Amino acid sequence: MKIIESVSAMQAFAYKTRRQGHTIGFVPTMGALHEGHASLVHRARLENDVVVVSIFVNPLQFGPKEDFRKYPRTAARDLALLKAEKADVVFVPTVQSMYPAGFATRIRVPSLDAILEGASRPGHFQGVATVVLKLFNMVQPTRAYFGEKDYQQVRVIRRMIDDLNCSVRLVACPTVREPDGLAISSRNRYLSKKEREEAVKIHQVLFLGRELVSEKIMLDSRQLIRRLSQILAKIPGSKIDYIEVVDPETLEPMQKIRRPAILAAAVRIGKTRLIDNIIIS
Amino acid sequence: MKIIESVSAMQAFAYKTRRQGHTIGFVPTMGALHEGHASLVHRARLENDVVVVSIFVNPLQFGPKEDFRKYPRTAARDLALLKAEKADVVFVPTVQSMYPAGFATRIRVPSLDAILEGASRPGHFQGVATVVLKLFNMVQPTRAYFGEKDYQQVRVIRRMIDDLNCSVRLVACPTVREPDGLAISSRNRYLSKKEREEAVKIHQVLFLGRELVSEKIMLDSRQLIRRLSQILAKIPGSKIDYIEVVDPETLEPMQKIRRPAILAAAVRIGKTRLIDNIIIS
Repeated sequence: MKIIESVSAMQAFAYKTRRQGHTIGFVPTMGALHEGHASLVHRARLENDVVVVSIFVNPLQFGPKEDFRKYPRTAARDLALLKAEKADVVFVPTVQSMYPAGFATRIRVPSLDAILEGASRPGHFQGVATVVLKLFNMVQPTRAYFGEKDYQQVRVIRRMIDDLNCSVRLVACPTVREPDGLAISSRNRYLSKKEREEAVKIHQVLFLGRELVSEKIMLDSRQLIRRLSQILAKIPGSKIDYIEVVDPETLEPMQKIRRPAILAAAVRIGKTRLIDNIIIS
Repeated sequence: MKIIESVSAMQAFAYKTRRQGHTIGFVPTMGALHEGHASLVHRARLENDVVVVSIFVNPLQFGPKEDFRKYPRTAARDLALLKAEKADVVFVPTVQSMYPAGFATRIRVPSLDAILEGASRPGHFQGVATVVLKLFNMVQPTRAYFGEKDYQQVRVIRRMIDDLNCSVRLVACPTVREPDGLAISSRNRYLSKKEREEAVKIHQVLFLGRELVSEKIMLDSRQLIRRLSQILAKIPGSKIDYIEVVDPETLEPMQKIRRPAILAAAVRIGKTRLIDNIIIS
């Protein structure tokens, strides 16, 4: 497994690989890798000649009051996991090389980036879209792999790829969960034992929401959200950022649930902010 | 000379050409071609295996009150000029294929796009940056050629290329002028005979500005601009959008002129808006 630190070396490797006619599967990450990431690398390994994983905690996608500085950095464990999954290249650029003095350009997807996560985290998706396009231009991937836990992120990147005529194909992969249903996330490690026990309720509530809709007990999203919010509010120290029913493509709020929709939630438990989503129909 | 209309055919041609190891020189235009464009194509021809010219009047870079609809379209003459300059491919996408329903993504270069032209034409450079990145992803150029008449455009595109790690090399080419010094522009054809005679004063004033600086007669930009504005104001029916001395890199206003700077102006003569610039030091 090759570790590449410089942007120019990454680009040189990518161009050489593509010129040889090989496909590149790319998994962009912020490190703190877990089974969710492992599933993306595993899929990339199956579908491509060469697998590149980037580890870069991207300051551009954190708000001023968010956890950029204390975001978990677990380099040794990450490399062990990537070696086990048979990644070919780990790309670990520095902040300085990604954003040198004078850096100014920003990519926005206005129709998708100011709602849900975007409303709670202004500028977040601008930071995500900008870094992902930069990484695409460095890694020259044939396919790029993203987890559906970050459903809105998948939508934003897909829109950007289509709109800017990027040649990469986005592959969205199912959320990986703990045995009790909690979506696996790098931020789960912030949770105390008690909080971890409570956190599973986020998934349970989304699951209940899906049942209520599929059994046609509640097809009005306002009524549904009110019911689910009452349950979430009972988690000690919790604060609901949002819980919404939205269109799977446009992410616009859906009032009457008559076709497939996404039920998405962001909840703070103590100081930890967790997100999850489920398809309902 | 091959004419390509579809985005997918353009991308297929570009990938095949690059995979064969050939270089692509790219000249993006809005048509209404003139000697300025011809000089760009000529240079591209000298430096690359394959020359691609795009003709696309980009609605995204026109303001709601600007001349998108009446912007000159001269397809037959354009193709004759490009054939004479030995372009290999003319890419003429439709508005619908560039901006299909749902298109949303925008690229901004905030530090450079709200001043000078950007102040007079809000959203203009966002439209330019977005379409140019799309075209880069379609045409996959080794080198892209831009005229220095649009000095700020060159700066914005160069910043975007660097910031987003695009692999293309930008080649900036000198402004081509009429024998009397007027910068050649597609919009010159809007001018009446009388206005055309007056229009040369824009260049003359910039030239005078350079003389006053190089002879160390005026090294304070406020004083210089006041003097030059007085002359421009005497053009019948003229309105000065701006005349400024700026840093060649950052485009920030320069007070004391102690190092090379750009003297740039935008002037309306009747209904026609003309721009020009000159290096002073």
